[in-house]
Order: sequence, then structure tokens, then C-alpha cells
Amino acid sequence: MARRKVCVVVNSRANYGRIKSVLRGIQNHPDLELQLIAGASALLYRFGKVVDIVRADGFEPVSTVYSILEGENPTTMAKSTGVGIMELATQFENLRPDIALTVADRFETMATAIAASYMNIPLAHTQGGEVTGNIDESVRHAITKLAHIHFPATDKSAENIIRMGEDPATVFMTGCPAIDLAAETDTRLPDDFFVSHGGVGSPVTPGKPYLVVLQHPVTTEFGSGLKQVRQTLEAVRRLKMPTIWLWPNVDAGSDDVSKGLREFRERERPDYIQFVRNFPPEEYIKVMANCACQIGNSSSAIREGSFLGTPAVNIGIRQSGREMAGNITTVDFDADRIEAAVRSQIAHGRYPSSHLYGDGRAGERITEHLATCQPNIIKRLNYV
Amino acid sequence: MARRKVCVVVNSRANYGRIKSVLRGIQNHPDLELQLIAGASALLYRFGKVVDIVRADGFEPVSTVYSILEGENPTTMAKSTGVGIMELATQFENLRPDIALTVADRFETMATAIAASYMNIPLAHTQGGEVTGNIDESVRHAITKLAHIHFPATDKSAENIIRMGEDPATVFMTGCPAIDLAAETDTRLPDDFFVSHGGVGSPVTPGKPYLVVLQHPVTTEFGSGLKQVRQTLEAVRRLKMPTIWLWPNVDAGSDDVSKGLREFRERERPDYIQFVRNFPPEEYIKVMANCACQIGNSSSAIREGSFLGTPAVNIGIRQSGREMAGNITTVDFDADRIEAAVRSQIAHGRYPSSHLYGDGRAGERITEHLATCQPNIIKRLNYV
Amino acid sequence: MARRKVCVVVNSRANYGRIKSVLRGIQNHPDLELQLIAGASALLYRFGKVVDIVRADGFEPVSTVYSILEGENPTTMAKSTGVGIMELATQFENLRPDIALTVADRFETMATAIAASYMNIPLAHTQGGEVTGNIDESVRHAITKLAHIHFPATDKSAENIIRMGEDPATVFMTGCPAIDLAAETDTRLPDDFFVSHGGVGSPVTPGKPYLVVLQHPVTTEFGSGLKQVRQTLEAVRRLKMPTIWLWPNVDAGSDDVSKGLREFRERERPDYIQFVRNFPPEEYIKVMANCACQIGNSSSAIREGSFLGTPAVNIGIRQSGREMAGNITTVDFDADRIEAAVRSQIAHGRYPSSHLYGDGRAGERITEHLATCQPNIIKRLNYV
Amino acid sequence: MARRKVCVVVNSRANYGRIKSVLRGIQNHPDLELQLIAGASALLYRFGKVVDIVRADGFEPVSTVYSILEGENPTTMAKSTGVGIMELATQFENLRPDIALTVADRFETMATAIAASYMNIPLAHTQGGEVTGNIDESVRHAITKLAHIHFPATDKSAENIIRMGEDPATVFMTGCPAIDLAAETDTRLPDDFFVSHGGVGSPVTPGKPYLVVLQHPVTTEFGSGLKQVRQTLEAVRRLKMPTIWLWPNVDAGSDDVSKGLREFRERERPDYIQFVRNFPPEEYIKVMANCACQIGNSSSAIREGSFLGTPAVNIGIRQSGREMAGNITTVDFDADRIEAAVRSQIAHGRYPSSHLYGDGRAGERITEHLATCQPNIIKRLNYV
Repeated sequence: MARRKVCVVVNSRANYGRIKSVLRGIQNHPDLELQLIAGASALLYRFGKVVDIVRADGFEPVSTVYSILEGENPTTMAKSTGVGIMELATQFENLRPDIALTVADRFETMATAIAASYMNIPLAHTQGGEVTGNIDESVRHAITKLAHIHFPATDKSAENIIRMGEDPATVFMTGCPAIDLAAETDTRLPDDFFVSHGGVGSPVTPGKPYLVVLQHPVTTEFGSGLKQVRQTLEAVRRLKMPTIWLWPNVDAGSDDVSKGLREFRERERPDYIQFVRNFPPEEYIKVMANCACQIGNSSSAIREGSFLGTPAVNIGIRQSGREMAGNITTVDFDADRIEAAVRSQIAHGRYPSSHLYGDGRAGERITEHLATCQPNIIKRLNYV
Repeated sequence: MARRKVCVVVNSRANYGRIKSVLRGIQNHPDLELQLIAGASALLYRFGKVVDIVRADGFEPVSTVYSILEGENPTTMAKSTGVGIMELATQFENLRPDIALTVADRFETMATAIAASYMNIPLAHTQGGEVTGNIDESVRHAITKLAHIHFPATDKSAENIIRMGEDPATVFMTGCPAIDLAAETDTRLPDDFFVSHGGVGSPVTPGKPYLVVLQHPVTTEFGSGLKQVRQTLEAVRRLKMPTIWLWPNVDAGSDDVSKGLREFRERERPDYIQFVRNFPPEEYIKVMANCACQIGNSSSAIREGSFLGTPAVNIGIRQSGREMAGNITTVDFDADRIEAAVRSQIAHGRYPSSHLYGDGRAGERITEHLATCQPNIIKRLNYV
Repeated sequence: MARRKVCVVVNSRANYGRIKSVLRGIQNHPDLELQLIAGASALLYRFGKVVDIVRADGFEPVSTVYSILEGENPTTMAKSTGVGIMELATQFENLRPDIALTVADRFETMATAIAASYMNIPLAHTQGGEVTGNIDESVRHAITKLAHIHFPATDKSAENIIRMGEDPATVFMTGCPAIDLAAETDTRLPDDFFVSHGGVGSPVTPGKPYLVVLQHPVTTEFGSGLKQVRQTLEAVRRLKMPTIWLWPNVDAGSDDVSKGLREFRERERPDYIQFVRNFPPEEYIKVMANCACQIGNSSSAIREGSFLGTPAVNIGIRQSGREMAGNITTVDFDADRIEAAVRSQIAHGRYPSSHLYGDGRAGERITEHLATCQPNIIKRLNYV
Repeated sequence: MARRKVCVVVNSRANYGRIKSVLRGIQNHPDLELQLIAGASALLYRFGKVVDIVRADGFEPVSTVYSILEGENPTTMAKSTGVGIMELATQFENLRPDIALTVADRFETMATAIAASYMNIPLAHTQGGEVTGNIDESVRHAITKLAHIHFPATDKSAENIIRMGEDPATVFMTGCPAIDLAAETDTRLPDDFFVSHGGVGSPVTPGKPYLVVLQHPVTTEFGSGLKQVRQTLEAVRRLKMPTIWLWPNVDAGSDDVSKGLREFRERERPDYIQFVRNFPPEEYIKVMANCACQIGNSSSAIREGSFLGTPAVNIGIRQSGREMAGNITTVDFDADRIEAAVRSQIAHGRYPSSHLYGDGRAGERITEHLATCQPNIIKRLNYV
């Protein structure tokens, strides 16, 4: 019997770490064939060229698809999604997958969802049913309404998906594959870790407390990115601890955030901050597992951070509504509050590990469902 | 104070009749400015070039946007949506509407929804919350999850939208603008109506009973269109009554349906069927209001038909789940059953008018809401 | 040593017959690997779905790429070319051909030329240097300026290419592969040929004289197609001989031409005309080789017709400037003149075969050059 | 009488300075209406957001069109051109210009050329007939074969255009509008010029000798950009003079060049170099007019530089074949040779002004031709 072809589209660095254990699962499963497409910002130098890490990890894409229109504003975010649909439709036309799998809720993931669902290819979706701010909130639920197979990460998310009218028989609570990586990674930091990684700026010394910052623009607050990042920068300037700062994602407004970072760098020449484009997923786990505090508005603090027990300060509305374990303190974009919250989190130290987003076996479960589920492309709002 | 700019995208003949009373409302409202974009199949000769009717009705598009990739299959349906997003994003970039309005659930309407929501333009949506088959079912609910203002046509639809997690404050039950047209049209058929209209085939004689057929492909049953239309054709062949047959929409599979029609026409040279590309909306109302029975799987039988009391035979799953008044009999794609159901509907005659889909004042209500509502582009799943 | 990968893009029925002997040559050559892409109108039912014939002939495309925006006007012609470039760039990105080969001068061929030349893939081009009317004239010479390897069909064309500033070392006069097909096809018509082929209308009886008509719109005279085809139809109506009429290409204005044909068919119900979407290339050769006269503005009358000695009436400016053998009479779009010219050509009967466009060995020569040439992607206008 | 609508597409910083005098001419001409579209890299922050300068200069675009796919490699260069065609076709569809004007030879200019020529809009072209390296060489001549009106900058270019088969009646030798700007700009440098401009790095002191470097990748040598820029950087490192370094254009390979610059900056922290994204055209003229030597492979050294008498070292093949005045020394990518050539140019000092590329009245002449010429969209290779 022919193996079932599962096409996974990896479109960004965030996508990859959160689906890697599933990629491995598919690749190793006797009844499944992996068709990996690398596209969008996963191909771009400015966002860490994740495709190189993907290849180094032993996953060879069947194709690479450029689709990001430069501009980093709401217009280009929409247009990039349009290009993505056009491109992925041709890919699906020629690859003929049995199932397409899309990860989470970044704007480009909609392209996979539309191409697959319009083409009668059963669409599987991870991280559905979660609640946040940003355009991600709309994207995530819209994808749920297009998807035929749901792999939510939490019980509450699974319940939300069903409440939105999805057939419970299509909803499989598996936990999040991101946690698999956190669970299996040896979190010890090698001594030369930050030196060898080679970001721009001064290396952090392992063994000494350091901060990690990852702050994205909020697409629904487009135009506020510069003002927002300046608050965080001011807090970090006052804290003046060794800091790893990751460049933001390719969302509308990331140019603003980057501009804030460049300005600050030119003005302050801060020798305590190391600017990094990207870490491979496992290395990012190590970084989170050992930091004194994580700062910003990345979901990683909430998701992987809950498992790792990372003290974190979450800023603004980007994550608002998301289920959180005890490791998170949320504040507004205000330098004073950010500074205070970070000091308090550092004082607290690490938190116990939470299984809120998974127990480390999500990839296994998802793979098995992909191999055995009987997807039905005919959907109907499931309200009796 | 600057008038609020409302951008309406008309992408097909079906779109137009179902939004016309709103277009008029916006055009006449002192606080609103209409930005009408005509795109997709509304520009195409094969689908009746609705843009010509739109212009003749006094609505001048601010722009025309070609976006349909030829092929009429699931691949081109997806790609056309991608092109639509790219194009509409540029339009919105330059028109800067205050609200974008998208109609119902055809595949191209998703382009408007994504472009607007990604660009932080408040998105209004009509006909949300209804339940059907086809990819429309997925598209409709996905658009609900992207939209900021909802104008459902029925109470149950409004309830469905809220159950899906939308904020009740954003849901306005207005009825369907399609009914406005049905309510205000003088439904008497002029004597020369079918002669002057000039479709291909033999004209129907007003005064004598005639059938109307409109059968679309079912995108989620792609590949079955030819088989399906042959059943309907066989039933019509046996009935041998004067028949108006409308060509299908530009959905995946419409080539199959058209092929069936062309084959039949070549073989049978049926002098009792007049093939028509398109009627202007009001004329279509007249046609429905006077026919002995409507046949096929168009939602018009259910929607406008309920108000007009048109006896109708609905075939297959395309409309399954949709709220229906008493005028509908549903059967499978089987010539015998179709024939029997049509004969029974003809015997029954016209039905009393139902207000299930509206009372004729939807356009008025929607216009007023467009002028006064305070849309919020930040959404959140509304489950406490 | 790795075989040299040659990517050929077949975008239309016209493309295919004119490159088929090269496809076979590449497929059979030990040092070459064929990467065949089928795209644009080669995939479309309305234009004969040439891809089915391609597959039946034993050429399996590595990918199929939809790119034609419906509308058949200058706007969609341009946009389709844009889509074609986007799509082919992704194909080339993933196929990594050593040479890309584009055929002749239809508008879509520009997509191959731009994608390849921008991507530093040596571009080979057939039929360069010829002179005609239509946008083809501009497209052809623009492609010459992008191409790195030229395979002109005639001595004069080769000379023209060099005069335009191309390096003579890159210009290989090979003759046209279209002639290879004409030379090797058994031109006898089987008795049931027209019956079995199954176009719409009355079959032509082999043995009896018949006409062939193929009339395309002229893109640079957009808007005149209906008027023009009516003249030809009127001439054919008066001649009232058995006639094979092929539907036009997907150029801007083909809707107009088709409209003229449909109108005429409805009004006249002409039992002497058989309307055909497409013939496989060899069958088209048979049709041309046996007709009493070919009518219209297709280059096939001039190219294959010269070799086959087909009497032909060429109408209008579409082919103006093209080298012609003795078999062609050119007239304006005027029913009287067309009728007179056809009667005169029928009276004359067949012409001796000319080798103006090739001797039947072009495919062989082109294949060998593809295998051995040393293309240089750095170009420079070759005027000393 | 309606004014003739001339649509000019400005796609990059280089475009703007070289068409500005024409924009002004059109805007001031009583018989002409300017339709300015700003697109591609003219909108992007990374390339100096030229659109802001355009607006500040009093030219309000009728639309802005994002079209650059990020990646800066040959694939995205092709795809961006495809997007550009799609977008511009819709713009032309709605703006209905009487003439479209495209500037020079950058890859995106092809989008304007194809959209206009396919849509039967007379296409005017500046800077045709020049000879260089890079993909620009192919693009430039291909556009000539699509254009209907030619405005070459030099006598030899005009002659080349005619030799390529263009009708001499369509070729107007006007000189280059870039020279107009050079001629009319007050070239004195204000004292605070470099301070106020605010690039990244140490400001140059006016009055003291300084260098200007602008080095683009060579698309046909894709992959060599890093190696090439390192040679130039090494030469500049040894010269250690105050230096203005402009970031490269958005060509394939500009990422490589930028990477080289960033590496160097991180390693050397060179306080003698000021990195600048963009100068408004007139300021760039000032910078060139006062520098001790210009270095790199920008055509500005050859074009504006010839008029300004700027000593310049041109490196590599990007400009090879271009007509040059006496101010240019050309060397290979070799730090030793670059250094030596720069020292020798500095020693020589400024050159007398040459009128090779124009006398400062090109804009005037082009405007007048645009207002009065009678373009013919039917082209034919003009060899007798």
C-alpha cells in the first residue's frame, strides 16, 4: 500500500521548533511519507535562514518557495499571504499530498490552510483553539474553520475548538510539539555557547545571570512598534545585565522594532547586549532554560517557558487571553513596570515545570493520528 | 467631517443581487462614501459580465480587478484567491477604506476578508452563520472569524455566529439584502421578456408554465459534476417543459457541468431549453417569481425563493444544513427522483411568502449600522 | 558525469507541435535530461488541453502550472505573464535546469524568458529573428535580447538576430522543428478521420475537398476581432464547402472571435462547418496536407504549409512581414476578397514543397547543440 | 481637449534622480497630466524609502505598489518582476494612461515595459541603447524591443537602437535627465551637510577630501558579491580617508554585499566610514561633485560623474562596454589595484565637465516629445 503523504509547510523559525518532533515522527513512520516545503521567512537571511538548520537536522525540503513581499507592513503581510496561496497551490497540485499540516497562527500559515482546504486536501492544524491578541487570534480561529483535523495543545483549547462548532471526532488533544523539544533537550549550556554562536554584540558569559529579550510588533497596533520597543530598551538599559536580544519576526511593524534596536545600538553602543538573528530550536531551549528572566511578548515564554520554568515578563496585549502557567508576569509597555517586574522575577528564580502545554509526547501522538485518522473533507457547523 | 468610506467588493453575479440594496443605501447616505470594486467573475463574459449591469444601475466601480485563473478546478480556485488578495491589498493600500464589506461565502470573498483583516481595516460580512455544504461552508465560518461586524440574515445565523465566539455587540441581525430586491421588484413578466433577453436556445413563452434550472458543481465533490448534471438533464428531458437554464458559477468543476450541458445540447438539440448566461438581479427575481418550479442547487431557491414562494427542487448536498422555508423539496442526484419531485412541486403551485431570510429592509439596516457602528479591530474569542 | 538538464516549457497547443521533435531528441539523448513543464493554455479544456496529448505521446511533465487569468484581453494577457514568471521562477529554483528552452513568440513565452535569464539559466530560443505583426513581433525580439542560444528557422531570421546585436557564435540556423513533424507524418487521411475526431458540428467527408480555418485575434488591433471574424465567416458562408474551423488561441480578443463564431452558429446552424478545439500535432498536419485551402491568420499556413504545399489565404496584418513560400495569398479582412482568394487557391491546387522553414532535421540539430554548446550568460551588444 | 496622460513608474532611488526633471516637465506642461506610480524598492526603508523624497519634492503618487519579494537573489528578482507586471497591469487598467514611461534598465523596469506593451499602451523608454554588463544589459535591450518611443542619452546609444531594428522616426536623442539635475544643482556643500544627513557611522568633514563608495552586486556573477566587496573594503581600509559608503540596490546578491559591509563594520568598527542608505538626488549630486574620488560600479560615476568631472575608479564588469568620459579608471576586483587607482585619481583631481550624457536640457526635450509625438503601437523590425 502506498504510504500516506503528509505535506508540512515550514514558514518561519517559530514554525520549525514547534513542529520538529512531528517531522521526525513522520519521517520515521513506516506508513507515512514526509513532503516538507520550506517557504516565507524560513528562507530569509534576515530571519535566520531557518532552512539551513532544517537541512542540517536531516530534513530535505521537496521545495523552497519565496513568498514574503518586503515592506513589513499590513499591506505586504496580506500580499505575502496571497503569493503564498498561489505558490502552495501549485506545489500541492504537483505533490498531491494526502494531508497538509499547518502550524499555529502566523499570518503566512493561512496560505497553507486556504490552498489545502480549497483543493480538498485534508488540513491538519496544531495549536488551534488558543486565545491571544494580534492578528494571530483571527488567523488561528479562521484556520480552525478551514481545518479537518485539529491537534490542540491544551484541554481548554480543545474545548474551544469544539465550542466553535467543530466535530469532536476531529479534535485530538495531543499537547504541543514545542514541549517535546523542551523535554528532550539537554539544557546544560556549554561554556563557549555564546561565543561560538556569533551574534552581533558582546557575548554573554554562561554561569552568570543573563536576560533574553524577544519582542515582536503587534500587527493590530501597527505604528506603535517603535514606541513600544523603546520602553523595553529603556528597562534593559537600566538593568544593564548581560542580555541576548533576538530580532523580531517578519510581521507588519517589525521594521519599526528593528529601527528602535538599531537606533539604540548606534546611540548606546551597549556592550551588555548581544543581538542574535536566530537560534536553532534546541539552542533556543538551552537559552531559555538558563536565563534569569525572559522579556517581551513571544509566546515561547508562555509555552516552552511553562515547561522549562523560565521566569518571564510578558509585555502588552500580544499574548492576552492565552493560558499561562505560574512563570509569567504581565505588564504594559512601560519601562518602569518592565524593570520592576524583571527584578522581581530574577529575585524569584526558576519555577517548577508545568505540563500545561504538553508532556513531551505530542509529536508521537500527532504522528500516529496522521497515520490512522480518516479525514472527511466535508465539514458542517456542529451545532445541533 | 469626512464621510466614512465603505469599500464593497463585488466579485460575481450572485454577490451583486445580494448587496445591491446596500450599495444604494451607502450611495445615498450623507455620512458614507461608496468605494465599489468589481472583480473576479463579475468582469467575465462567460459569467454574464455583471459589471456592465452594475454600471447600468448607476454604480461606477473605482476599480476593476481581474483575478480568476482559468481552469475551474480546486487548484485555480485557490490560486485565484491568492491573486485576489494581492490585488485587493494594493487597492486597499491606495483607497484607505474605513470599512470593507464582503458578501456571503463564495471562495473569492475570502480574498477581501484576508486583505482587509490583515490590513487592520474593519471587515463587515453579510450572510454569516448560515450552514450549508460545499467549500462555502468553510469559507463562510472562516470569514466570520476574521470579520469585525456581522450582518446575518436569520436569527439562527446570528445565534450561530455568537456561539462561534463572536462578541454579540458586533452581531446585527438585519435580514438578507437579497430579499429587499425580491420585495421591491414588480414581479410581472412582460410579454416579450424571454424574447428580448436573448439567451441561446428557444424562448420561453410567458403565461405558459416554465422551469428554471441553476446547477453548480459541488467543490467538495470535485469530479462528480458531469455525472450530477446528467441526472438533472435527464429529468428535464423527460419533463420537456419550456425551461430556462442558467450556466453555472466559476467554481471548481463548472467546466464539468458546462461540458454536460454542451454535450446534451449537441445531442438533443433541445428546443424546449433556453440557455442563459446571466440575468440582471431584478429580472432574475421576475423569472423566479413566475416559474412553475426551480430546480438545482442554487441558494436562490432557498433564499429569494422563500420570500417569493417559488416551488423548488433542491438537489444534492450543496445546500444541506441551510434553513429552509416550506417551498423546498430536497432530493439526491437521481433523474427519477428529480422528475417526481418537480412534478409534485408543479402540482402544488406557489407557496405563501416567508420572511425567514428577511422582510425587505435589510439594506436600510445595514447602511445605518455601517454609518454608526464603532468597529474594533482587536478581536478575542468571546468564551468566558 | 551528470546529464545536462534541459527544461522546456510548453504553454499552448502551438508550442507543442513546434517543439515535439526536440522533446523526443532530448529524451533520447544520453547526455541530456528532459524537464518538461506544461503550463498556461496547454492545461485548459477550452484550448484543447494539450497536456493530455503530451502525456499520451510519452512525455510526462515534471510539473503543471496554471497561469492564465481569464478575460482574454490585454490586461489579462499581461497579468498572466506576471503569474507565469512567478510560477516558473519557483519551478526553476527547485528544478535547477542547466538550460531553459522557450518556443517562439506567444505572450506567455516571455515568462520563461524572464525567469530563466534573470536566474542566470542559459536561455535557448526557437523561431527568433522572424518578422510579423501582433504583440508577437515585440515579444519575439525582446526574447532574442534575453536569450543566450538562438535556434532560428531560416537564414534570414538568423541574419536578423545577428543584426540585432547577438553574438554570431550563439546563433545556430537549424530550421524549425515544426517541419520535422510535417516531414515524418504519414499525411494520408483515414476514412473515418473526421468522424472519430468528434468536434462539434457536421463531420467532413475525406476524399471531398474541404477548407480549414484558424483565425486568431490581433492583439494590437484589440477590439476588432468580432468585425474581422464576421468577414471570414461571410466568405465561408458563401463558399459553403465542408469546413474545419478551429477555435482561436487564448490571446487578447479571442473572446470576441469566439463570440462571432457562436453568433454565427446560432443564427446559421451551418451544417457544413465542424468546430474543433484542437488536433494533436500530427493530425493537424494531416488536416493541412489534405485541405483544399487553409484560411485565416495562423502562422501554420506559412510555416508547415510551405513544406506541405498547402494553398492558403492569409488575412490581415498578423503575419505581415513574415517570409513566405509561394503557397500564400494575403488579403485584407474583406469577405469579397477572401472568397475570391480562396476560390483562386482551390483552382490552383497544391504547391510544391518548400524548404524555407526547414528540411525535417531541426530537432536533431537543436538537440545536438543543446548537448554540446557552451552557453555564456554574460551578454553584450555585439556592435564593434 | 483632454490632456495626454503620461504614467511614470518610479521603482528605485536610481530611477528617481534620472527622471525627476521629466516629472517636473510633465507636471508643468499644459497638455500633459502626470500619473506617477511609486513601487518596488522606492517604497522600502532598507533602500532609503525614496517615495518620501518624491512626495517632499511635490510629486504625489496616484498609487503605491509593493512588489519586491525579499530574498535578493536571482529567484526573487524574477518573481518580483512577475508581481510587478500583475500589479501594474491593474494600475494601467484603471488609470488608462496614453503613454507609459519606463526608466533605464533595472530588473523591475521590465514590469512596466511588459504591462504597457501588452496592453497596447505606447511605451517610452529612457537610456536605451547603452552597453554594459549585468542583467541590465539584457533588460535594457529587451525593453527597447518592446518600446514605441526611445529617448536615448547619447548619439551612440541612439545609433545602437536604430541598428537593433527600431524605426529611426521613434528615436529621439535627448540626453539623460540625470544630467539636468547635475547641471542645475548648486554643488556647494553646506558645512553641516554630513552631520545633518545622519547616516550610520562617523560624519565626514566638508572641506576635507573624502571618498564615496557605491558597490552593487553583479547579478550575472551571483555568489561573488561577498568576495568582491571585501576587495573594495580592504582598499578603503588601507586608504583610511573619510568615506561615505552607500548601501547597495535591491539586486540579486545585495545581501552578500551587505553582509560584507556588516562583517567589516563589526570587525573594524571603522570610524572613518559613514554608511548611508540614501541621499535625495540633489544631495547625491553634491556628494559626487565634491568627493576626492568615487569608487565602485555604479553608473552614476560614469553618467553624472562625467558631467561633474568626478574622478572615479570603476571596478569589475558591471559597467563594461558603457561609453565613458575621461574621469573613469577601470580596474578588477583586486584591493591592490583599487587602492593604486584611487590614489592616482586623487592625485589627478577633478576632470573637465563632459557633455557625453547630456547638456542639462533632456527633461525639456523629453517632455515636449511626450506632448507631441504620435506613437504607433504596431512595431516591425526595421531591416529592409
